[in-house]
Amino acid sequence: MDVITSSEVVGSYVASRRRQGETIGFVPTMGALHRGHLSLIELARTHADIVIVSTFVNPLQFDNAEDFDRYPETRLADEEMCRQRGVHVLFRPTLSEMYPNGFATNVHVEGLSSILEGASRPGHFDGVATVVAKLFNNVDPDVAVFGAKDFQQVAVIRRMAMDLGFRIRIIVAPTVREIDGLAMSSRNVRLDVEARRAATGLSKGLFAARTAFRAGTTSARTLVDLVVGHMRTSPLVTVDYVQIVDPYDLKPVEDAGPDDVAVVAAIVGGVRLIDNLVLGDDDCLEG
Amino acid sequence: MDVITSSEVVGSYVASRRRQGETIGFVPTMGALHRGHLSLIELARTHADIVIVSTFVNPLQFDNAEDFDRYPETRLADEEMCRQRGVHVLFRPTLSEMYPNGFATNVHVEGLSSILEGASRPGHFDGVATVVAKLFNNVDPDVAVFGAKDFQQVAVIRRMAMDLGFRIRIIVAPTVREIDGLAMSSRNVRLDVEARRAATGLSKGLFAARTAFRAGTTSARTLVDLVVGHMRTSPLVTVDYVQIVDPYDLKPVEDAGPDDVAVVAAIVGGVRLIDNLVLGDDDCLEG
Repeated sequence: MDVITSSEVVGSYVASRRRQGETIGFVPTMGALHRGHLSLIELARTHADIVIVSTFVNPLQFDNAEDFDRYPETRLADEEMCRQRGVHVLFRPTLSEMYPNGFATNVHVEGLSSILEGASRPGHFDGVATVVAKLFNNVDPDVAVFGAKDFQQVAVIRRMAMDLGFRIRIIVAPTVREIDGLAMSSRNVRLDVEARRAATGLSKGLFAARTAFRAGTTSARTLVDLVVGHMRTSPLVTVDYVQIVDPYDLKPVEDAGPDDVAVVAAIVGGVRLIDNLVLGDDDCLEG
Repeated sequence: MDVITSSEVVGSYVASRRRQGETIGFVPTMGALHRGHLSLIELARTHADIVIVSTFVNPLQFDNAEDFDRYPETRLADEEMCRQRGVHVLFRPTLSEMYPNGFATNVHVEGLSSILEGASRPGHFDGVATVVAKLFNNVDPDVAVFGAKDFQQVAVIRRMAMDLGFRIRIIVAPTVREIDGLAMSSRNVRLDVEARRAATGLSKGLFAARTAFRAGTTSARTLVDLVVGHMRTSPLVTVDYVQIVDPYDLKPVEDAGPDDVAVVAAIVGGVRLIDNLVLGDDDCLEG
């Protein structure tokens, strides 16, 4: 495995592989890799000859400095995991490589960026869209793989990629969960024992809503109340939002259908967590 | 010459040429081609094996609908000119190709976009940065050629391309002028006889400033007054701005140096014209 920090070097690598007729799969991450990321890597491998993983903790997408400072960093473990999984290139750009002196460009996706996570984290999705556009240019992949846990991020990136004409196929990997249902997240390591237990309320609520939907409950308000009820069983959980939304425009629906998505965000013991579930999907608890 | 309207087709064309080891030069235009554009095409040819010209009148970069509606369109003449000059591909994307249903992405370059032309034409450079980012992805060139007449546009595009990691060399072609000094522009055809005569005040003023600078005048205020004086010899000219600016951050200077640029904008007989001149350059009047 090559560890590359320069976008020029990664660009030359990709150009030379492509000249040999190989296709490039790309998994952009912020490091602190876990089993969820490994599933993205596996999926990339099935869609491309070469797998490139980037680990760049992108300051632009943090709406507060403390969250950025506390974001976990596990460089050696990340490198080892990528090596073991047969990743071809670990792309680890420096901050000055990504945001050189005088950096002044912002990519904004109207509408999708200002609701849900965007309402709670102003500027977050501008940071995501900007860094992903740049990484897409740096790596120039044929396919890029993102996790379904970051549902809104996927919607923003799909829109950006289509609007700006990136010829990159966006693939979404199902959310990987702990045995008790908690969605894998790099932030989970920051949960203490109590908060870790309380955090299961998010997925418990989502799965309860899905069960109720299957049993015939389509009122979004009823489904939302059900999710909120599960989350509020612990005082450590502060609900940010719970909504049933349309999968395309992410706007709340009143009468839920099988393609609609239950989305939640909460602060659990000081850690912000998100999760979602498509009401009609039959993915099981475990990842 | 191939005339291509689909970005997918132009993408396949470029990929196949590149596999054969050829390099791609790109000249993005809004059509209504004139001698200025031809000089861009010639320059592209000297830097690349294949020359692709796009003609797309980009609604996003017009700050008012009337200006958009009145922008000249000369499709058959454009096509003939490109053919005669040995252009390989004329890329003429449709509006729905460029801005599909639900289009929501905006590329913004902070700072550079809000001064000078940006102050007079709100949103103009967002439209430019967005369409150029998309065209860069559609065409995927090695080099792209822009005209020096649109000085601020070049600065915005350079910044955007560097910030977003486009591996495209930006080349700037000198402004081509009519015999009497008027900078070539697609908008010149909208000048009536009186306005056409009055319009020479812009370049006359700029060249007078350069002459004064060479003779030792470095006070920006004095140079600006000189330019304004030449422009105001006709009542048909309404000055928008005249400034001596730094070539990198485009901010006004007080004491001018040889790299600084005299920039002007004016409404002449109802037509908005811009022009500029590097004070230390020795390019002659004719193009």
